[in-house]
Amino acid sequence: MLNIFHTIDLIGTFAFALSGATAGVREDFDIFGVFVLTAVTAIGGGVMRDICIGTLPPAGLVSLSYLLVIVAAVICVAFFQRLILSFERATLFFDALGLGFFAAFGANKTWQYTQNVELSILLGCVSAVGGGCLRDLMIGKPPTIFSQDIYASAALIGAAIEISGSAGYVPHIYSTWAAIIICTLLRLVALKYKIGLPSIKHNGL
Amino acid sequence: MLNIFHTIDLIGTFAFALSGATAGVREDFDIFGVFVLTAVTAIGGGVMRDICIGTLPPAGLVSLSYLLVIVAAVICVAFFQRLILSFERATLFFDALGLGFFAAFGANKTWQYTQNVELSILLGCVSAVGGGCLRDLMIGKPPTIFSQDIYASAALIGAAIEISGSAGYVPHIYSTWAAIIICTLLRLVALKYKIGLPSIKHNGL
Amino acid sequence: MLNIFHTIDLIGTFAFALSGATAGVREDFDIFGVFVLTAVTAIGGGVMRDICIGTLPPAGLVSLSYLLVIVAAVICVAFFQRLILSFERATLFFDALGLGFFAAFGANKTWQYTQNVELSILLGCVSAVGGGCLRDLMIGKPPTIFSQDIYASAALIGAAIEISGSAGYVPHIYSTWAAIIICTLLRLVALKYKIGLPSIKHNGL
Repeated sequence: MLNIFHTIDLIGTFAFALSGATAGVREDFDIFGVFVLTAVTAIGGGVMRDICIGTLPPAGLVSLSYLLVIVAAVICVAFFQRLILSFERATLFFDALGLGFFAAFGANKTWQYTQNVELSILLGCVSAVGGGCLRDLMIGKPPTIFSQDIYASAALIGAAIEISGSAGYVPHIYSTWAAIIICTLLRLVALKYKIGLPSIKHNGL
Repeated sequence: MLNIFHTIDLIGTFAFALSGATAGVREDFDIFGVFVLTAVTAIGGGVMRDICIGTLPPAGLVSLSYLLVIVAAVICVAFFQRLILSFERATLFFDALGLGFFAAFGANKTWQYTQNVELSILLGCVSAVGGGCLRDLMIGKPPTIFSQDIYASAALIGAAIEISGSAGYVPHIYSTWAAIIICTLLRLVALKYKIGLPSIKHNGL
Repeated sequence: MLNIFHTIDLIGTFAFALSGATAGVREDFDIFGVFVLTAVTAIGGGVMRDICIGTLPPAGLVSLSYLLVIVAAVICVAFFQRLILSFERATLFFDALGLGFFAAFGANKTWQYTQNVELSILLGCVSAVGGGCLRDLMIGKPPTIFSQDIYASAALIGAAIEISGSAGYVPHIYSTWAAIIICTLLRLVALKYKIGLPSIKHNGL
């Protein structure tokens, strides 16, 4: 069971890392800059969560396996760009899977340290989308997740489902799988049918 | 007494939240993005302060009343834009009041945890202006408070007045009210007469 | 010995502060904005390190000597711009020295609190380059260190050399001096010969 979660974690991190590495290459960063942007995208959300709950140093910064995944993503983007492009749909799928996993895992970790429902849902969402926000900020753009199809809201829903289990409303083992699966499906459906949240019309503002 | 402070706190937070929600709508963020930008603007400064003094999780992230204020601000901006526009002067007034309150409250909280004069004044100012900085960074602009009329400097003065009381130079009850009132007045006068700090001429730099 | 390190620390901080103050003046920030950007550039990296290892409040925020150095840098940029321009080569030299010192010092401090090799090297590098990254983000640019000649990579190497001593592979006193000197020299050589890291070609990405 732990092994399955660990595998999902690494696959999701890899998908996030690929999006960071790709953005860095597009910005013509040097190889070190690409590495930093990759790392920030892959582990930034978890670091923000750990700073907010005070579990320091942040787990993402002391794990060798994350470091290897980040290096692997940079190597892939450096040498196998065609391969990545041809696997774009797979990458989007794994990104959605990572989104669901990080939302559930982040919410659960926050719950274990704080037993606070609001904070756990919030930081579950931050775990899942924080890295992508930092990536966009570092290349000087407003975060795309704020004007894109459903992304952060899927993470928020996933985190809320997970916490319904942590807080004891439903058996925990169901809530975790439900959180990962529903969040991932929501994201995939939104991608396929280009479903976005409405934006607010402004007249005069 | 505590009730008055709590009310000022919520009103100030609401004024800050309105400025975040307005910025989000102008950037065409979707409704979730507007919500995030509103939350970041309203509680970002306090979260930065709490991270720096290590009182984790940050108070702003675990308080349901802040969440309600943020949601209220998003609803106002979504449905009552005309109303907000017609109340623009009131909004500026409450923003100035929030500035003074957050500077005094943030300085006081920092003092209680660290008894350090320099840090308390600094983080008092950060509490008051940090959210606005993050708002501007997230929409890809240099923070406006750095090239605008007197804003952060009013917060700095308010925080310093508050700490003169915390550190025992004047009775505390006077210092808190003086901090809030002087900071708010400074800001309002600067707004009315468009008083800004000088910038530094550059010849050759 | 401690005196030498303290002097290098302040000189390096001053060089970093100058780069922040210069950037602020170029952006037409008001005098307070210039001060904030100067402070963020000078101590931002150390603050990020201290937040990640949980030594709160961050050392850079409670030290009066840093504050004085920051104020001195703002005064220099306000009144002695010609002087600064004529000393540009000296400034670059002290910036390189600061880079080496911060990398070694940041790595060493992280090691003392965590005994973690990976984290110490990482946060040594963050200590040295974090302030410059924040400076660029605050003026709305992608961090220049990610597409410039060798900078962050020199800091990473310096931090790694320092940790080889902290972890006991070589005598510590040698490793610290070697870290500072090699990192500084690497940076100076890269500056002189405009040596950069390669960037990754993108075909189709």
